[in-house]
Amino acid sequence: MDRVRVSILGATGLVGQWMVKLLANHPFIEVVGLSASPGKVGRKYGEVVHWFIPGDVPEYARDITLVSTDPPDHKSADVVLSALPNDVAWPIESRLLSAGLNVISNASPERMNPRIPLINPEVNWEHLNILREVKGNWVVKNPNCTAAIISMPIKPIQDLIDSLHIVTLQSVSGAGYLGLSYLAIDGNVIPFIKGEEEKIEAELNKMLGKQFPEKFEPWGKPVYVTTTRVPVKYGHMAVIHAVLTKDVDTEYIINRLSRFRSLPQERELPTAPREPIKVINRVDAPQPARDLDPMAVSVGRVSVRDRVLRLVALGDNLVRGAAGITILTVETMKALGIL
Amino acid sequence: MDRVRVSILGATGLVGQWMVKLLANHPFIEVVGLSASPGKVGRKYGEVVHWFIPGDVPEYARDITLVSTDPPDHKSADVVLSALPNDVAWPIESRLLSAGLNVISNASPERMNPRIPLINPEVNWEHLNILREVKGNWVVKNPNCTAAIISMPIKPIQDLIDSLHIVTLQSVSGAGYLGLSYLAIDGNVIPFIKGEEEKIEAELNKMLGKQFPEKFEPWGKPVYVTTTRVPVKYGHMAVIHAVLTKDVDTEYIINRLSRFRSLPQERELPTAPREPIKVINRVDAPQPARDLDPMAVSVGRVSVRDRVLRLVALGDNLVRGAAGITILTVETMKALGIL
Amino acid sequence: MDRVRVSILGATGLVGQWMVKLLANHPFIEVVGLSASPGKVGRKYGEVVHWFIPGDVPEYARDITLVSTDPPDHKSADVVLSALPNDVAWPIESRLLSAGLNVISNASPERMNPRIPLINPEVNWEHLNILREVKGNWVVKNPNCTAAIISMPIKPIQDLIDSLHIVTLQSVSGAGYLGLSYLAIDGNVIPFIKGEEEKIEAELNKMLGKQFPEKFEPWGKPVYVTTTRVPVKYGHMAVIHAVLTKDVDTEYIINRLSRFRSLPQERELPTAPREPIKVINRVDAPQPARDLDPMAVSVGRVSVRDRVLRLVALGDNLVRGAAGITILTVETMKALGIL
Amino acid sequence: MDRVRVSILGATGLVGQWMVKLLANHPFIEVVGLSASPGKVGRKYGEVVHWFIPGDVPEYARDITLVSTDPPDHKSADVVLSALPNDVAWPIESRLLSAGLNVISNASPERMNPRIPLINPEVNWEHLNILREVKGNWVVKNPNCTAAIISMPIKPIQDLIDSLHIVTLQSVSGAGYLGLSYLAIDGNVIPFIKGEEEKIEAELNKMLGKQFPEKFEPWGKPVYVTTTRVPVKYGHMAVIHAVLTKDVDTEYIINRLSRFRSLPQERELPTAPREPIKVINRVDAPQPARDLDPMAVSVGRVSVRDRVLRLVALGDNLVRGAAGITILTVETMKALGIL
Repeated sequence: MDRVRVSILGATGLVGQWMVKLLANHPFIEVVGLSASPGKVGRKYGEVVHWFIPGDVPEYARDITLVSTDPPDHKSADVVLSALPNDVAWPIESRLLSAGLNVISNASPERMNPRIPLINPEVNWEHLNILREVKGNWVVKNPNCTAAIISMPIKPIQDLIDSLHIVTLQSVSGAGYLGLSYLAIDGNVIPFIKGEEEKIEAELNKMLGKQFPEKFEPWGKPVYVTTTRVPVKYGHMAVIHAVLTKDVDTEYIINRLSRFRSLPQERELPTAPREPIKVINRVDAPQPARDLDPMAVSVGRVSVRDRVLRLVALGDNLVRGAAGITILTVETMKALGIL
Repeated sequence: MDRVRVSILGATGLVGQWMVKLLANHPFIEVVGLSASPGKVGRKYGEVVHWFIPGDVPEYARDITLVSTDPPDHKSADVVLSALPNDVAWPIESRLLSAGLNVISNASPERMNPRIPLINPEVNWEHLNILREVKGNWVVKNPNCTAAIISMPIKPIQDLIDSLHIVTLQSVSGAGYLGLSYLAIDGNVIPFIKGEEEKIEAELNKMLGKQFPEKFEPWGKPVYVTTTRVPVKYGHMAVIHAVLTKDVDTEYIINRLSRFRSLPQERELPTAPREPIKVINRVDAPQPARDLDPMAVSVGRVSVRDRVLRLVALGDNLVRGAAGITILTVETMKALGIL
Repeated sequence: MDRVRVSILGATGLVGQWMVKLLANHPFIEVVGLSASPGKVGRKYGEVVHWFIPGDVPEYARDITLVSTDPPDHKSADVVLSALPNDVAWPIESRLLSAGLNVISNASPERMNPRIPLINPEVNWEHLNILREVKGNWVVKNPNCTAAIISMPIKPIQDLIDSLHIVTLQSVSGAGYLGLSYLAIDGNVIPFIKGEEEKIEAELNKMLGKQFPEKFEPWGKPVYVTTTRVPVKYGHMAVIHAVLTKDVDTEYIINRLSRFRSLPQERELPTAPREPIKVINRVDAPQPARDLDPMAVSVGRVSVRDRVLRLVALGDNLVRGAAGITILTVETMKALGIL
Repeated sequence: MDRVRVSILGATGLVGQWMVKLLANHPFIEVVGLSASPGKVGRKYGEVVHWFIPGDVPEYARDITLVSTDPPDHKSADVVLSALPNDVAWPIESRLLSAGLNVISNASPERMNPRIPLINPEVNWEHLNILREVKGNWVVKNPNCTAAIISMPIKPIQDLIDSLHIVTLQSVSGAGYLGLSYLAIDGNVIPFIKGEEEKIEAELNKMLGKQFPEKFEPWGKPVYVTTTRVPVKYGHMAVIHAVLTKDVDTEYIINRLSRFRSLPQERELPTAPREPIKVINRVDAPQPARDLDPMAVSVGRVSVRDRVLRLVALGDNLVRGAAGITILTVETMKALGIL
């Protein structure tokens, strides 16, 4: 199989580090460039990175010399993966686009642009098909980390849902390594995350809707979301109450969830989880400390009463919610022949 | 004003300690007995208690000799306050009743008994009126700690509500001092608390309904609750999504909540908060670490969209949710002339 | 008694907030000015401050209009109290000095200047006497928070000590409100605090030594310190192993510690703790969560074996270690007639 | 190589689970029995165990039927590995001994018995040689978890040391899964662990001393230890100040530590770490959250000043400190031909 050459923007941040880690020993994706902020350009990745995540800096990445975010520094990449912070991402990404490069990005700006596909591979890989009609280069966005996790268990039961009430309990790593001080969040809950509820509502509706070349048609169901930050390091949880359109029982829902498979599973893509939704029987699952899977969404407490379905979903905000979803998008696009 | 003499069952536990603390210097309630488990009977409270809570053991309580839970040990009390664990409470409480004593109890058994009033004073003090027709002695139950907190902001808008979706984030102290090990809950969320959801749904419906001498008529609205345990020491939070029966705006709801006053406020009872519901403007309120009030319920994030009201409520599970509510019930019954 | 007028530099920070709080209702110290960084000047304290600490912004301070750190803004103050960050403090403080103002400062620069007294009132108030010979205005420094706490139990047994081995377990608030991220310190210990060990060793030696107008003579005993940061919000703990010069028993040490009184106690200064050293009998004391006192140092685990004394000391790093010590220094200087 | 058949006592506890995990796919140790408390006997391990530790219950162990601790249930084992709680261990272990079985035990009773070797393989494997002279069966003890960790970096510099001052910061898992409640230890430090200081002092002295068939000759250097419990899940840290007998420099010490190898390394035993002592250069190492190694001891902050050496050691209390050391002892005894 042909290799795909990628470069990574924001390679020293929390999401960038996960991309570097997940691409060690990848069967067909090759890292040809790592870029970081101007002060670090020209130095070696292994010397500069403040490695926060488990394990060591992968061997292959240590001696890579950091480059800038300027287009000429990325011209050997088939696609540029962006793990840039939301507030600086778009000017850099659009400069790369103008220079003829392809971009897959985790950053929030332009996610709701009607011509840009917003992709969680298992949920809406079909939306990538519009790129077949695009001449030249393209940009693909990955969703907000929480929208990535929630969209997974909603997808297989989408047709049964009339409205959604969602309360999230999100981990501190979602705010970045320095995002929340110990004094602010330890032993505390902060029931507000700026901009998060709007993103989840809009992005769920886009991913579960239809994508056309020039526009998208949203799913159209009301989604009410309250987001909270809890003193947990890794893993976002969502408690979902879904008002259903017809009578079904708990067993029926569990079957649909646990049997769900999509293109990444059918093609056995390297980063795809074998079961995208892991329904756990234990009465007190899922828990971040016990049940967190890098790419699958863990689901527990499934029950239906009077046409209201309740379930609790848990996913890895840095892997399924960010670095892993980007890589799975590369793999999916390769499998579809778009990349 | 006449004094009310009380004795406390389970005086060395977490809730019992709060009762002892809150009754120090009370204007008209006098502690005439403290009881504990058999191994401690005959010893002094101050020597036996492993004081977990802020401050020191109140002066008055230190030299009180612990008694048993047998009725003769409580005959000088006008009312016995029970802070007994749920699994041992009822046999002891019913023995006291059979012996002609009055009991106000925090323990869960018999809360849904149709002849026993379940009282959160600001919410349903009127239910106490059935006791005027009771000959002889009586038992009054206080609600589950989370039901006590949630019922407060629901009461003033009860007539506007069609159904409720509630997700709770409950603190570790709700499980007792030794209830959860550090390894189990630190940096974790456990999305299940045994029996809690059923209690909240049933008790809310009883308190918001009507009480007759022989039965109660529940409120009758569907209440969907998911409870979770979070690594916070004190304070239970509830995220409430209420489906409304008609169009109202956010300002209207805030007004109803913040202007709510009930009998405990009108009679200026010593343990009553001046404002039972504190609506906090700060965008990220309420937080356990910053906004916890002993007897008032703190409310934030109030907003209405398409006939769905969202609010976040926070209350002190040990004071408003347990020890304080019991004492406020004594004060309310005294004010009503029932005690 | 005459009033002392003070202004506070860095009034919106963690230490500045504690100064503002501790000076509410002070019998003779009056706050005549609060200053903050340029962006906040001209606005009201109550509107600008992000109040981190328990309770509300004191009534008196809410409507004070913030001023700059320039000398003319402080000319009505008898003494300027500095809660400035270490890296910006000295240029500002020396400008105030040049302009003829008096300064008491918590910031670290110039603490080891041989002409500047470094004061923990109970430990070395006598060092203030050199100011009687100074013509004109002066600066006094308060010690590093950990040195403030450790110097207290060492003072009364100073003559018995040959060398000291100290290991500290310091709370996160010592690094400021935003000083340590949750991901960095939760569930972790960081056995290094930049510059801290050197400060503790040098400052202990200065405070326990002699102060002359032009120089000081250090105590001269070897002090070996290792500092660690632990996931605790408030309170610094130090485990002290002291090699003794002669045979004494545990009881003798406990007596010396618990009977220690100094000028602040003799003059009954408002901020002085009645007992500066609280020796706690409980076998597992002192604990930050149970035994933290604002101004006294809690001591436990005192024992002597083979001429090695072991004790554990715990103090409030923001009050005894910073804001409280500054105010107690003002009170002490007033009592001595220097201010 | 011949296989060694082992059975495990206390297989469902925290240490027992680690033994089960570490023995999955072991090249020559075979698990032939798992025993648990009477209520669990006869049921399958995989159904009964409440698996606390990372990963899943190993495949091989799931269907093993739990046996009792009675000798007949262990007669097929070449050696019985005991992960029993300290308070019940010895009667069971001595019953197995009387019945002619060999035992290697983590439990504390009889560790200081002069005829029983106390073994941390890299530190004092030579002590096992006395068993060559023993007719029949034997018992070997493993040290206290903290003594296991501390003895490692002391061993290679033992000859330079005059006395030791040690302060430990021990994780919560050292007290067992349910050992400490969240309310007791979160955000707190408890500067006392019952019996721990005595064990560390005595056991260090035994392991660093000489073992004869009938007695041991302790190392004989004074060791002063203060132990504390900190809110960390896994990993025990020790800050060590060693008074040296002669002048050496920091580099010299680092060389001795990092070059240390012992019999387990020379024989390349499967559970032996390649480098038993990992000296980490990073200024703020070692940290439990970043530097914990299962079998090696991580060391940082090495420095010598005036004949006082300071270093910070960190080890895994459940692996190097308990389950791993037992398995490494089996491997060492096999390599020595004793087993």
